[in-house]
Amino acid sequence: MKMIKGCPSTSMDDYQLNHTTLIRHAARNFPEREVVYKTAKGVERYNYQEAYHRIKRLASALEQLGVQPGDRVGVLDWNSRRFFESYFAIPGIGAVLLQLNLRVSPDELAYVCNHSEAKYLFVDESLLGLAEELAPKLNKVSAFVLMTDKKPEELKTSLSPVFHYEPMIQSSSADYEWPILDETSAYSACYTSGTTGRPKGVYYSHRCIYIHAMMYAIYGSISCRDSLVQLVPMFHAQGWGIWQSAVFMGAKIVLPGRYSLEDTQSIIELMTDEKMTLTNGSPALFTPFLNHIKQMEEKPDFEGARIICGATEPPLSTMKGWRDLTGAEFIHIYGATETTPICLCNVLSPDLEERLSDDEKWELMKKQGIPVTGLDVKLVDENGKEVPRDGKTAGEIMVKGPWITNSYYNDERSQESFADGYWKSADAGTIDENGYVKIVDRYKDLIKSGGEWISSVDLENAIAAHPAVEEATVIGLKHPKWEERPLALVVKMQGEPQSNVTEQDIIDFIAPKFARWQLPDKIKFVQTIRKTSVGKFDKKKIRNEYANEFIKP
Amino acid sequence: MKMIKGCPSTSMDDYQLNHTTLIRHAARNFPEREVVYKTAKGVERYNYQEAYHRIKRLASALEQLGVQPGDRVGVLDWNSRRFFESYFAIPGIGAVLLQLNLRVSPDELAYVCNHSEAKYLFVDESLLGLAEELAPKLNKVSAFVLMTDKKPEELKTSLSPVFHYEPMIQSSSADYEWPILDETSAYSACYTSGTTGRPKGVYYSHRCIYIHAMMYAIYGSISCRDSLVQLVPMFHAQGWGIWQSAVFMGAKIVLPGRYSLEDTQSIIELMTDEKMTLTNGSPALFTPFLNHIKQMEEKPDFEGARIICGATEPPLSTMKGWRDLTGAEFIHIYGATETTPICLCNVLSPDLEERLSDDEKWELMKKQGIPVTGLDVKLVDENGKEVPRDGKTAGEIMVKGPWITNSYYNDERSQESFADGYWKSADAGTIDENGYVKIVDRYKDLIKSGGEWISSVDLENAIAAHPAVEEATVIGLKHPKWEERPLALVVKMQGEPQSNVTEQDIIDFIAPKFARWQLPDKIKFVQTIRKTSVGKFDKKKIRNEYANEFIKP
Repeated sequence: MKMIKGCPSTSMDDYQLNHTTLIRHAARNFPEREVVYKTAKGVERYNYQEAYHRIKRLASALEQLGVQPGDRVGVLDWNSRRFFESYFAIPGIGAVLLQLNLRVSPDELAYVCNHSEAKYLFVDESLLGLAEELAPKLNKVSAFVLMTDKKPEELKTSLSPVFHYEPMIQSSSADYEWPILDETSAYSACYTSGTTGRPKGVYYSHRCIYIHAMMYAIYGSISCRDSLVQLVPMFHAQGWGIWQSAVFMGAKIVLPGRYSLEDTQSIIELMTDEKMTLTNGSPALFTPFLNHIKQMEEKPDFEGARIICGATEPPLSTMKGWRDLTGAEFIHIYGATETTPICLCNVLSPDLEERLSDDEKWELMKKQGIPVTGLDVKLVDENGKEVPRDGKTAGEIMVKGPWITNSYYNDERSQESFADGYWKSADAGTIDENGYVKIVDRYKDLIKSGGEWISSVDLENAIAAHPAVEEATVIGLKHPKWEERPLALVVKMQGEPQSNVTEQDIIDFIAPKFARWQLPDKIKFVQTIRKTSVGKFDKKKIRNEYANEFIKP
Repeated sequence: MKMIKGCPSTSMDDYQLNHTTLIRHAARNFPEREVVYKTAKGVERYNYQEAYHRIKRLASALEQLGVQPGDRVGVLDWNSRRFFESYFAIPGIGAVLLQLNLRVSPDELAYVCNHSEAKYLFVDESLLGLAEELAPKLNKVSAFVLMTDKKPEELKTSLSPVFHYEPMIQSSSADYEWPILDETSAYSACYTSGTTGRPKGVYYSHRCIYIHAMMYAIYGSISCRDSLVQLVPMFHAQGWGIWQSAVFMGAKIVLPGRYSLEDTQSIIELMTDEKMTLTNGSPALFTPFLNHIKQMEEKPDFEGARIICGATEPPLSTMKGWRDLTGAEFIHIYGATETTPICLCNVLSPDLEERLSDDEKWELMKKQGIPVTGLDVKLVDENGKEVPRDGKTAGEIMVKGPWITNSYYNDERSQESFADGYWKSADAGTIDENGYVKIVDRYKDLIKSGGEWISSVDLENAIAAHPAVEEATVIGLKHPKWEERPLALVVKMQGEPQSNVTEQDIIDFIAPKFARWQLPDKIKFVQTIRKTSVGKFDKKKIRNEYANEFIKP
């Protein structure tokens, strides 16, 4: 569509949306508001004013180091205060912060560094071993910066040349004056790790990040009164960007450092001690946290707190449990690396609230929500036609808007993932008459049977809920009559008496939840299910393996 | 400063921020949410979906009428649903909605129409007389559009050619497809009426309006649960833009139509009936409203509601009264036509909240607040140097940011009002150590005495609080020793026994509030005080008149 230029305005339309504005604001108006960070030594804290001074010193130091606008600077770190500082200083001078996902293989990390042509690598002390493993594979990295509280001489490393973060900033000026950056300049880069193929690069602009931070502030109702516990790793889609919104508003920020699911107790303690009012993460975190809270004699009081929850659908029992035991409410969102990530948000319209029963409201909460203002979201069938708003028909979710990716960086695979100005999410969803979208499957994993769709994910979840099942996957296979029909692969719980479970037991167990035609045609008990490098079921390979299950070759 | 372009991003940075996105979102996600509008017939209502259909029809009709992108279209109306619809349809096709302030003289309105070269004029039935008076003075208007519920044949008018809003939209298609507008295109125009000279044109861009709507949503904590009673006239700085934020979030909107200060009871009823949670206006509204509420036997319940209050400093008694009697809280803001208008907002940082006593908090509430995120605000002395953050030294407030004006449209006076990339507000303020700004005077009305500043406004307010005083103004006049010294002009309350009040009575009355050297050197009792066409004290002329009061000519 042609773009129309009307009468010129008299607004400062050339004032660029720069990420640096966020920390400038927080340091100026909320100088004493705390940034709390957990290290191996314990919980430490400083404030926005102190953070800002260190950020300006770091910016000076980067320039002295020779970092140029446009350069990519990789960071290997947990959610630490130095990561937080780097997120302002690196993009603030016009360079690009390259996020390095600690959950992918060193081989993939090396690919990401090389594909992005990273020139510098920041490394937290705890990840020195990983960096040393990576170093020989890196094509363009010309210097390493070590982030540690130790003195330079206390750490031995094979990295070279190596600089030290703390001495660098101590010897640099805090009088740094920020350049004005064209708002379309890349701010940070994050590589998606799909189930197949090499990671693909998403390069977020300053404009994208700025507008996204505002949207999150709006949809998360974030204010300077909040205390955010930033659980999502900042090496993945900027930790969903919520800490940027917190800085935007001058809220308190709590960075948990390195933690794992085993650290439940210390995370809950951190939340309690720091009077958490806002946090983010996936049900994979909040469900075990809730189980821990159930065991606690004195429940933590999170009345009024919001838990921004995404990645997968939060179980009702998790949402209800948090509310009942702690007072915290879930905000269910949907997004992806390519959407920065906020895309859908489960906001309850007052008209629906009046009309729905309590149970219906909880059911609605399970949906991923409505498109946030500013995004165009559509669900289309294989012909590109929008599916009806009936809450049943599945289509692929496609998105466009100011903070959505328009291509992968320097990657020929872009053409598969973008069409008609939209990003193709590869997620299948339904949309109901009120505009609420529900994710039902990966689009390519949907099973098309007799002109209707069956969600492989729904079947998998139902089967996995059987006490004798360790794990299960469901795939659609070619069928002579119905086009496709579902096959289930099931791994029995090891060493349990229930491992005498039969195919019929499973079918009987899940039958009440599905229409008869949706049930798998066959259930195969297997020893293991093939997975990808990041631990997802490798359905592509599984489908190939069983391709002829229902048809003659 | 040079602008730096870093690495290209992969974000959809060319996705334009268009105002139309707001109503598209509301109609899609909150179709049933109400827009309530009061007419001469009573309170009527429709919803976002119905509004959106009419807006699309109006857009079609405008194109049929021949309105081109860039054309200016004037609107003469109160806060009505047709004004609301026009605000989407006119800018939505790329034209510019020209706001016509019903409080200025017909002569000034004609100037505004002619300066902006308005080609079309929308006229509410109730303002037909005004439009007919204007018509002969308009140079470029080629057609009038009458907004009325009556049938065309029921209204006689000398306007020609005249079209009728309702039949126009009835016969037009709702299948309108919005063009994509370059976000720097002008969206609407508002002319400021200063105390001297002709009005000056501010042309807001779509980008400016879009970002501003987001900021208001953030700082007003606006959500889809809100019910906004839009009191500020939409013909003045878009009614402060708060209804745009309401549409952004899918909140309910209540348009009061034509009302005056005498309609207190019906406005309070409207607020109560429509469960108001959000409103905006000046103390000139909320103080008399409060007086009315004090008389009510059953007080309205506005618990949790926010009153966005600007224009002048809200008296403590007004803020406390609303809170105590209704539960509503004030949000004190500062802005101007040139700032769209949000610029400062009185947000209480939690650190201050902990430290301050209740009384100190209320005192802080009287300040205009901190700069909202995204704006650069500085207070400078006559040499352009920033004043210290001591809460005492006055400087001129200067602002830049994405929603600030960079010049007046086609107006040579621009050079006086902009410097160094900033808009010069001509307001004098102080800034304290916590960054809170307080407006003390118009910059040119500040009185400079012995190297220190005296606020003419503070003296005026103190004198006007004397029961025997009808009104008072204070000006600074040249003085041989102190550079300038204050002179007060006072009009005594007519027909009251207190009109025997003396100069010394007044000085004694205000003395406790000021340092001795701040008190006026002389108080003159006068019959009237010279005012401008918009009712402000014409201090420029008054200063000329009394120029030689303290010095020999």
